[in-house]
Amino acid sequence: MQNFIFKNPTEILFGRGMIAELGSRVSTESPVLLLYGGGSIKRNGVYDQVKTALKTHRVIEFGGIEANPRYETCLKALEVVKANNIGFLLAVGGGSVLDATKFIAAAARFEGADPWEILRTGGEAIHSALPLGSVMTLPATGSESNGNAVISREATHEKLALGSPIVFPAFSVLDPETTFSLPQKQVRNGIVDAFIHVMEQYMTYPSAAPLQDRFAESILQTLVEVGPVTLAEPQNYDARAAFMWSATLALNTLIACGVPQDWSTHMIGHELTAFYGLDHAETLAIVLPGVWAHELERKKAKLEQYGARVWNTKSATEAIAATEQFFHTLGMPTRLGDYGIRAEDAAEKVRARFAERKTLIGEHGDLDANAAAAILRTRA
Amino acid sequence: MQNFIFKNPTEILFGRGMIAELGSRVSTESPVLLLYGGGSIKRNGVYDQVKTALKTHRVIEFGGIEANPRYETCLKALEVVKANNIGFLLAVGGGSVLDATKFIAAAARFEGADPWEILRTGGEAIHSALPLGSVMTLPATGSESNGNAVISREATHEKLALGSPIVFPAFSVLDPETTFSLPQKQVRNGIVDAFIHVMEQYMTYPSAAPLQDRFAESILQTLVEVGPVTLAEPQNYDARAAFMWSATLALNTLIACGVPQDWSTHMIGHELTAFYGLDHAETLAIVLPGVWAHELERKKAKLEQYGARVWNTKSATEAIAATEQFFHTLGMPTRLGDYGIRAEDAAEKVRARFAERKTLIGEHGDLDANAAAAILRTRA
Repeated sequence: MQNFIFKNPTEILFGRGMIAELGSRVSTESPVLLLYGGGSIKRNGVYDQVKTALKTHRVIEFGGIEANPRYETCLKALEVVKANNIGFLLAVGGGSVLDATKFIAAAARFEGADPWEILRTGGEAIHSALPLGSVMTLPATGSESNGNAVISREATHEKLALGSPIVFPAFSVLDPETTFSLPQKQVRNGIVDAFIHVMEQYMTYPSAAPLQDRFAESILQTLVEVGPVTLAEPQNYDARAAFMWSATLALNTLIACGVPQDWSTHMIGHELTAFYGLDHAETLAIVLPGVWAHELERKKAKLEQYGARVWNTKSATEAIAATEQFFHTLGMPTRLGDYGIRAEDAAEKVRARFAERKTLIGEHGDLDANAAAAILRTRA
Repeated sequence: MQNFIFKNPTEILFGRGMIAELGSRVSTESPVLLLYGGGSIKRNGVYDQVKTALKTHRVIEFGGIEANPRYETCLKALEVVKANNIGFLLAVGGGSVLDATKFIAAAARFEGADPWEILRTGGEAIHSALPLGSVMTLPATGSESNGNAVISREATHEKLALGSPIVFPAFSVLDPETTFSLPQKQVRNGIVDAFIHVMEQYMTYPSAAPLQDRFAESILQTLVEVGPVTLAEPQNYDARAAFMWSATLALNTLIACGVPQDWSTHMIGHELTAFYGLDHAETLAIVLPGVWAHELERKKAKLEQYGARVWNTKSATEAIAATEQFFHTLGMPTRLGDYGIRAEDAAEKVRARFAERKTLIGEHGDLDANAAAAILRTRA
């Protein structure tokens, strides 16, 4: 086992009616900025619950945060924060709203000249941030209980990540009932996103971390078990609750403790979103089987362990096939061609971007731009 | 799944050499009280590592905290805290030192007349506490990452528990190498203690919490796998590290989220320690199979699930037998007679104590003094 430091101070308020607890968690001393996305929270009753819970608070609103939240949008929110002396940021929505809120929280206290520096340094430039909390209405990203965010810059087709202990939410409310009205596609995306978050912290090589392995496999097994159920029965509370808690545990940094990680699939996937506008999870489902096939020998022991424990398969290649089949069962395509994208075009675009930035990926840090291109060429 | 609130802010510093990080975690503004037990930390090098890490701090010491820490000892430490204007408590040792330190931290800020009130109310009387941290050198209790403590009062043969979010350690250092010199008996006790901590949060009835179930089973499986190895090879770092991390996760409140709990085994076991001086884990290994057999029908579904997933057994009774056999493999007795205690004597003593306090146990809260006595009569 590798040495590690683990700290996750986010308070999780989980279950039916928990939005009512919001009032006691947010200070009334300064105005609160309520951030949200396209307005679904006004249709599904979440907005009303939040406003009721904060009826003694001064609440300013900023809506319109898009999927794959844009830097340009965040800067507009930042102006609202500064103009209103905001003391607390409350994200209400999915991972995109939360990610944007984390960046805005850091940017509000950033003392440098250009807040893009926060993203360019991957979050290392963050030394202070406004406190934030969330009402998470889309189980997927785990953003409700970590210090990570991904922001896209429209002008340059860049999608960059930040990670900092300073932007963990103080609390996150997770009420499965707030997710009953989600479109099927978002639920499907969320299941795949959570599944692959686990994989990025698990599918490397054996590292004498048996408990971490079993925790990771527990989340995978639960997603395999409840994923199809929660897609077929959106109002099945127990299935949705199990999915929601799985998505949080998939990326609250617990299963990463003491083990090697490989975020190759996310690194390549981010570029596919930046170039072609695919949903985050759609890119992951395309890239993951390609990364595994490319790294078959070096990941063989873990692929076999995963296959045996989760799918009852006998070989690494069978484990890969079972995984791709699982994505299909959820209605998730796994090929570039399914979106009309030429593999050669994607391979060349990503190769050029990785080469320009000298990006190296993989748990050994030795997969370069050509390797990324080779992986994408197999995903036609 | 039941509603739940989860928050665990303790920072875990895990691995070889991590004691060196202490200095940066403890304020130098006020004197630090270093609390420890019988002095083993002076023989195994931990004391020297701690003193080196705190070489720029003012450190006062309080040694001699015993196993099953006594209220009377804690009051002596409290005098040292008050006489020296202590600002931080650093527990170095096992669960007993940590438990005592949590009580002392609460007592130091207690405004009532009698600090016993803190224990009499189970921790509800705690409104403030001195900050505390730990170097945990005995994997067992999980006390390094929760707000629980158990204190014994010699004068009255009472053993009472407190639980409060206010006494979570700010940090805990876990270096598996500091545990290499532990006596075999303490390692055996630790494995059983962690195993049964999991059981108290797991072995009830199905509650639509599949991820929590699998996490609990993951810890059990890991303890089954590495327990015998770490007993046979005390200096096997990886086995000891996996055991140590399992003991923390067994009782950091994560697996309790959203599920019913049954602390019957601990409740009865505490009385056996109070009356007969048995080690905590020794009492648990005696009581657990008795509770399960008594509650066979109501726990049947979970006993079967546990047996199938952890032991590959087919029935609840086989699962109970496999568990008792596992304890024997570790060298842990499971009968009162193994300690020369008459079952009827233990049953009557515990019955009288439970009756006097009107104690009710079990996940349904309906097992009374007579049930506890009946359970003990089967453990001759």
